[in-house]
Amino acid sequence: MNVSTEQVVETLKDFLDESQVSVNQTIRELHGKDESYHDVSLPDIVVFPKTAEEVSSIMKIANRLQVAVVPFGRGSSLEGHVIPYDNGITINFSLMDKILEVRENDLLVKVQPGVTRTQLNKELKKYGLFFSVDPGADATLGGMAATNASGTTTVKYGVMRDQVRDLEVVLADGTIIHTGNLAAKSASGYHLNGLFVGSEGTLGCFTELTLKVYGIPEFTTAARAVFPTVKNAVEAVTSILQAGIPIARVELVDESSIRQVNRFSETNYAEKPTLFLEFDGNEAGLQQDVEFSKEIMEDHGCEEIQFETDNTARTKLWDARHNLAYAYIHGNVGKKMMVTDVCVPISELADAVIYARTELDAIGLIGGVLGHVGDGNFHALVMIDMNNSEEVARADAFNEKIVRYALERDGTCTGEHGVGIGKQKYQAAEHGAALQVMEKIKVALDPNNILNPNKIVKIESLGE
Amino acid sequence: MNVSTEQVVETLKDFLDESQVSVNQTIRELHGKDESYHDVSLPDIVVFPKTAEEVSSIMKIANRLQVAVVPFGRGSSLEGHVIPYDNGITINFSLMDKILEVRENDLLVKVQPGVTRTQLNKELKKYGLFFSVDPGADATLGGMAATNASGTTTVKYGVMRDQVRDLEVVLADGTIIHTGNLAAKSASGYHLNGLFVGSEGTLGCFTELTLKVYGIPEFTTAARAVFPTVKNAVEAVTSILQAGIPIARVELVDESSIRQVNRFSETNYAEKPTLFLEFDGNEAGLQQDVEFSKEIMEDHGCEEIQFETDNTARTKLWDARHNLAYAYIHGNVGKKMMVTDVCVPISELADAVIYARTELDAIGLIGGVLGHVGDGNFHALVMIDMNNSEEVARADAFNEKIVRYALERDGTCTGEHGVGIGKQKYQAAEHGAALQVMEKIKVALDPNNILNPNKIVKIESLGE
Repeated sequence: MNVSTEQVVETLKDFLDESQVSVNQTIRELHGKDESYHDVSLPDIVVFPKTAEEVSSIMKIANRLQVAVVPFGRGSSLEGHVIPYDNGITINFSLMDKILEVRENDLLVKVQPGVTRTQLNKELKKYGLFFSVDPGADATLGGMAATNASGTTTVKYGVMRDQVRDLEVVLADGTIIHTGNLAAKSASGYHLNGLFVGSEGTLGCFTELTLKVYGIPEFTTAARAVFPTVKNAVEAVTSILQAGIPIARVELVDESSIRQVNRFSETNYAEKPTLFLEFDGNEAGLQQDVEFSKEIMEDHGCEEIQFETDNTARTKLWDARHNLAYAYIHGNVGKKMMVTDVCVPISELADAVIYARTELDAIGLIGGVLGHVGDGNFHALVMIDMNNSEEVARADAFNEKIVRYALERDGTCTGEHGVGIGKQKYQAAEHGAALQVMEKIKVALDPNNILNPNKIVKIESLGE
Repeated sequence: MNVSTEQVVETLKDFLDESQVSVNQTIRELHGKDESYHDVSLPDIVVFPKTAEEVSSIMKIANRLQVAVVPFGRGSSLEGHVIPYDNGITINFSLMDKILEVRENDLLVKVQPGVTRTQLNKELKKYGLFFSVDPGADATLGGMAATNASGTTTVKYGVMRDQVRDLEVVLADGTIIHTGNLAAKSASGYHLNGLFVGSEGTLGCFTELTLKVYGIPEFTTAARAVFPTVKNAVEAVTSILQAGIPIARVELVDESSIRQVNRFSETNYAEKPTLFLEFDGNEAGLQQDVEFSKEIMEDHGCEEIQFETDNTARTKLWDARHNLAYAYIHGNVGKKMMVTDVCVPISELADAVIYARTELDAIGLIGGVLGHVGDGNFHALVMIDMNNSEEVARADAFNEKIVRYALERDGTCTGEHGVGIGKQKYQAAEHGAALQVMEKIKVALDPNNILNPNKIVKIESLGE
C-alpha cells in the first residue's frame, strides 16, 4: 500500500461500524489462507460489509488509494484464490448471507453472496426445489460463482456458470452493475454473466446472485458398481454417455481411495475401482435408464452392482464419496493435500486416468485418483509433507506432468478448481494468444489492478 | 474509408485470387441487406476467403487502413446485423463450408463457419447424431454463433452459446486465437467462448467452431394441443415446466397464425390458440412424460390433443410451424415483416402474450403472436407496408411498447434475434451501467472500431 493501514482504516470507518473493520491478527490470519497448500499471506485489513453500497464505497476508496482488494467467502478455494499476496483489504461477505427471494414459478432464487449451498438447499427443500452445484466444501454461492465451481451433478445439470441468470457486481471504480436479467435466454449485448462467473474476484465483487434451481426429481436411484480395472470403469461411463442416458451423477473412485473411504466412513466396500452413480427422473424412465446402464456396465466387466433407492442408504453412499478428501486428510495427519484437476475430452479419459495412476505410483506418495468422469474431469489427490522440499518438488512435478498430458490432448489445466495462483503458470500454454485478450479485458475493467491482483492474469503491479 | 476502394482491392489481391475479391454491384447488393426491414447499405468490397490465414491478412489490412469489416454468413439475420452502414469490406464465409471432423466419441463436431445447420445435420445423421439449435432460417453456424441463435429445441438443449466448446477467432489486429478447448468443462481463465458468442462480429471473425452434438433420441412424439385462450395454453406450459417434465419443444401459435398455417401448409387445424409440442427420450420415460403432460393440459382446459409418433406426420407438423413466417410473407405480398423478440420470466409470460395480442389488435395491422414459450420468448409478427410511413411508425411504436413491457419485468429486448441495429436503442435501458463495461471491452479488443462498427455498442467512429 502507498498509504498507511491506519489511514485506510480511518477512511473506512467513515461509513462502516467499528465491528465491520478489523486489523486483528487472528482475523487477518483466518483470511490469509485457503484449503490449498499454497503459501500464507495476510491482508492488512478485513472488512465485513452489509450492503452493495458499502462494498461500492470500499472499492472507491481502494481504487483511489490503489490498495488491493480480495473478496472472501468461506476460504474453501483450492488454488490460493483468496490469499492476498499484495495484502491490502479482504472483503468478507459473511454478513451478506440472506436468501432474498425464491421465485418458485420461475425456478429462480435471489441470494446474497455469503449464502452457502447447504443453507440454500435447506430453504429450497420447503418448496420442493434444489440447487444443483455441489463442490466438496460447503462454499458460499458468491465464491462458487467467482470460481465457476462444479461437482458431482454437473454431468446432468451443468457448472455454476450455467446456473447464473444475473449478478449484481461492484466494479473496481465502485460502479454497481447487473450482468443479466430474469429471462431464460437473451441475445442482448455481450455475455457479461459468463465473463464475470469464473473471474475469481479479478473483475468485480458479487453482491447479489440470481440462480436457477430445479424441482427435486420424482424418483432417484443410486448405485455402486465395482470393476476389475479403472479402464473398464471409465469405458463403461463413456458408453453410458454415448447411449444418451441422462445420468445425474457418475463418480470414479480408485482402489486406494476406496480403502480410505472404508477406514473413514466405516463402510466395507470392495477395494477395487468403483463407480458411484445416480439416476433421477420419472419412475418408468428411470427404471429403463437403470436397466440399460446395468447392461452396459456388465458388458464392460462390472463385477458387482449394488443399487440404493432408500434415502438413508443413498445418503450414506454419497457421504462416503463427498468425505473422501477429508478421509485422506484425517488418515495422513501432518500432511497437506495437493489435488490435480485436469479435464480432458471424454475419448481421452481412460488413458489419462491410467496415466495419472501410473505416475502417482511412480512418485511413491500416498494418494488416489477420483473424479467426475462423466465430464472427463478427474483429480489425483496427493498427500505431501510440506516440510520436505524434495517431496513437495516430486508432487509439483507430478501435477505438471498431468497438466501437460491434458493440454496436449486439447483439455484444460483446471476443470473446476480454478486458476488462482496454482494454475497461473499454465495459462500461457493453455490459452496462447487468447491470454492477451484476457489481459486486455482485465486492464480495461480494472486499470489500477486492485481487484485480486495477479490471480488468473499477471498485470503490472499497483502504482509501479 | 480514408483510402480509395481501388487501393484496398489492390492490396487484397496481393494474397487473394481475382475470384475472391468483388466490387460487382450485384454482389455488393446481395451483401447490403438481411431478412429484416432495416435500410439497405452496401459494402464497397466483398471478399471470399478460404482460410483463417486469409481472414487474418484481410483484418491486418483493414485495421491498418481503418476500413470497416463485416462478417457475412447467409444474410438471414433479423435486426440488420450484417448490413454495413460504414460500407468497407464484407467477408463472405461461403467458401469456408467444410465439416472438418466428427468426434463421435466426444459428441463434438469441428466445422468451418460457412457450414449451414441443415448441411451439418445431414452429415451427423450418418453417425446417429444431431445438432440441436434450429432458428427459422437455414443459417450458417458461424452466423448462429455470432448472434447466439436459438430456436424450438432450446427449452431442452439450450442456446447456441451452450453448444460452443471452442472457437477459432481472428481478432481486429489479425491475431488468431482459440477461445476454448475440447474438455466438457473448464475453470481456466475468463470465459471467452461466452463473450465471443453473441458478439455479432464486433469483437472478431470466427473461422472454426467446435460444437456439441447429441445422440438422436430413441423415441420421439409430437403433439398439437388446442386451447380456448392463449392464457390457458401458456399456463399449461408453465405447469409442465414446473413439473420438471423435460419437454423437447413447446411452441405457441395463436389463432390468426394458425389461419396462416392452414392457408400456406394446406392443413386443417382448429383455428384456436395451439401448442405444438415434442417429447423425446427412452420409450417408457417418454410415455410417462406424455401421459402426465396430457393430464396437465386437460386441467388447463385443453380441448383437443393430437399425437403424432409417425415420422412423416411429425415432420408435417413441425414444417407447418417452421414455415409460419413464410406463410405470413406469402400471404401478404408487397409487405415486409417486423418481428418482436422479447423474453420474459416465465411467471410473466401469460400476461405478456395477452398484452402483445391486445396491442397488436389495437394497431390494426395483420400479424400474429407465436413463440418459444418454454423459454418465455415470444414473437409478434407484424406485416407492414414500408412505403406507408404512418404504418411503419405504428409498428415501431408497437415494438417499443412490447420491449418496455418486457424490460419493466426484468426481461430482455431480444431473446434470440440479437441487437444488430434494431435493438441498439434499448441497450442503455436494458443494461444500464453494464453497457459501459461492454463498450470498454469493445474498445480494448478493437481500438480502431473496424469490426462491424456501431452494432451492439456505439463507439467513436473510424479515424474521427
